[in-house]
Amino acid sequence: MSNQNNYVAIMAGGIGSRFWPVSRTGYPKQFIDILGTGRSLIQWTYQRFKHICPQENIYFITNQQYIQTLKEQIPELNDANIISEPSRKNTAPCAAYFAHKMMSLNPNANIIMSPADHLIMDERAFERTALDALNFVSTHDALLTLGIKPTRPDTGYGYIQYDVEEELDMVYRVKTFTEKPSLELARTFLKSGDFLWNSGIFVWNVKTIMEALDRYLPEMHEVFTMAKNVYNTPREAEVISNLYSQCTNISIDYGIMEKAKNVFVIPSYFGWCDLGTWESAYENSEKDYLGNAVYGDNVMVIDASECMIKVPNEKLLVVQGLEQFIVIDTPDVLLICERNREQQIKEYVAEVKRNKGEKFL
Amino acid sequence: MSNQNNYVAIMAGGIGSRFWPVSRTGYPKQFIDILGTGRSLIQWTYQRFKHICPQENIYFITNQQYIQTLKEQIPELNDANIISEPSRKNTAPCAAYFAHKMMSLNPNANIIMSPADHLIMDERAFERTALDALNFVSTHDALLTLGIKPTRPDTGYGYIQYDVEEELDMVYRVKTFTEKPSLELARTFLKSGDFLWNSGIFVWNVKTIMEALDRYLPEMHEVFTMAKNVYNTPREAEVISNLYSQCTNISIDYGIMEKAKNVFVIPSYFGWCDLGTWESAYENSEKDYLGNAVYGDNVMVIDASECMIKVPNEKLLVVQGLEQFIVIDTPDVLLICERNREQQIKEYVAEVKRNKGEKFL
Repeated sequence: MSNQNNYVAIMAGGIGSRFWPVSRTGYPKQFIDILGTGRSLIQWTYQRFKHICPQENIYFITNQQYIQTLKEQIPELNDANIISEPSRKNTAPCAAYFAHKMMSLNPNANIIMSPADHLIMDERAFERTALDALNFVSTHDALLTLGIKPTRPDTGYGYIQYDVEEELDMVYRVKTFTEKPSLELARTFLKSGDFLWNSGIFVWNVKTIMEALDRYLPEMHEVFTMAKNVYNTPREAEVISNLYSQCTNISIDYGIMEKAKNVFVIPSYFGWCDLGTWESAYENSEKDYLGNAVYGDNVMVIDASECMIKVPNEKLLVVQGLEQFIVIDTPDVLLICERNREQQIKEYVAEVKRNKGEKFL
Repeated sequence: MSNQNNYVAIMAGGIGSRFWPVSRTGYPKQFIDILGTGRSLIQWTYQRFKHICPQENIYFITNQQYIQTLKEQIPELNDANIISEPSRKNTAPCAAYFAHKMMSLNPNANIIMSPADHLIMDERAFERTALDALNFVSTHDALLTLGIKPTRPDTGYGYIQYDVEEELDMVYRVKTFTEKPSLELARTFLKSGDFLWNSGIFVWNVKTIMEALDRYLPEMHEVFTMAKNVYNTPREAEVISNLYSQCTNISIDYGIMEKAKNVFVIPSYFGWCDLGTWESAYENSEKDYLGNAVYGDNVMVIDASECMIKVPNEKLLVVQGLEQFIVIDTPDVLLICERNREQQIKEYVAEVKRNKGEKFL
């Protein structure tokens, strides 16, 4: 049976700009069925956690502008489980807010902080790992993260080095965090065998994270302490809305994990992928015999190869002569670029913003 | 002053499939402002002929399905000047029909048969040439065509060889017609100096063309003779509609010009182009410093070169890494292909028809 002390916060406020132009500020990628699996990424994420904790313990933290979309995609969701993030402040304020809210609700809460837009293929393995993690933090003062055994020298992910000597119940102490490395460094990491990909999925009990906040992000901790009488009351949203702007914009990794001493990782194998980029979508797609990943009901590929192609189902695309390109068409934006240049999509988006304003974002 | 005996028939029934997907069966290229000049090709064509003959002498021959569009684009047009072509039968039946109709209206008629979708840059030079041609045919029993001094070995045009020795008032006798040649042959033509591009603009007086029809297309001539009592009466459309299907599908060039002896040409210089293909549109376009011809208000070219790009003004295109490509976007069709492969567009269209029916055509 699900443990009533287990809680999940699904962080769903991102705008997914590397997935532009399908992911838009107004309708970001977590709400999109990018791989055409029949459900959006956030729907799959919710589905997964329903096996891990009681439905009423699954919370979504998202921007005000996405709440309507969230309700449409998960109609069974209660308003009490939707936490409106007053502004985009990266993940640490999410973690702090949720910790304080849980402390007021259930001081024995074990918490998973999870992105909304990851792809996980092996649902049962994920379930086991997540439950192991929740179990571990319920009895240990540990800031735990799920690390993914790397299969390639990906330069788009962060890496976690762990101490292979110090194991407890499949949990290892973390030595270092490294942000997106160079290809050379990524290759070294892969070879060394003691590096994992940082999945961005964090697990802790509420007391441990409160202590860490007090120690490493004292000002932010203070902000949320000021609201301690309003959590889980009708005034919560209003009070937090006024306080949130005082939070520093900082990530959980940088604000807490890289500083704390009690940081642990579970090396995991559940077919994980941060579907953060078109390249990752390409890699996770079925291909035709020329290596094209094609999404769209009316696509005529003449002699293109190894392309990532996505057009609306009602649109006809005739494409000839492209090799290793991304072609993404939407009603108001068309993106054509080389697959190996897609790290620049964020720059293109910034350029669009400079030249055209918010219109196409 | 305009000569009251001068008439123009603008042939506007084509479907422009080599300009797909902008040119559609339902809205072909003559009605489109392909180069973004502020007017469609047919509007420019009409404009040009208004300087050459009385407005009431300008006729349009087009398919029933385009009449509404034609009226929208040229609101001042009288119904009497719109000739409905009951089915697509190439240009010779157009010429025969119009000759018979003119014979009944004005036996001294001088006629220009002109495509609707050509680009002509030097309007005044065209005007002078056209008036010279009309003058010539009013006093000579000549089937005249306007030949364009070639500037490159274009393999997309037909060629006319003329007799440089036999000149009369700038008019030369034609020796041979050649359909689209190989590149090698086109180069030889260009070097020889006695070859011109076949503009598809024909000029004759009504008696001369009637004689030619009687001689070279006697069956077709007979068909239109059967209707001689109904031309320019309320019954014309209905009677012709019943007769038209009996006509052979054949061009003016093949049916008449290549056979007749009294065929002449005026070597012309008026910045002509049969905007028949994306390549010709590209050649006639202003380019950016990387050689891209770009149509669309919101196009961000990152490092593409020598591309022909056309997207709707309201659409944002971000394009990177393409060299010598055509990118044409429309609300329901997107075409991406190499510029040197565009001769295959007709094949793509046929393939689309096989796979998807008429939907995207």
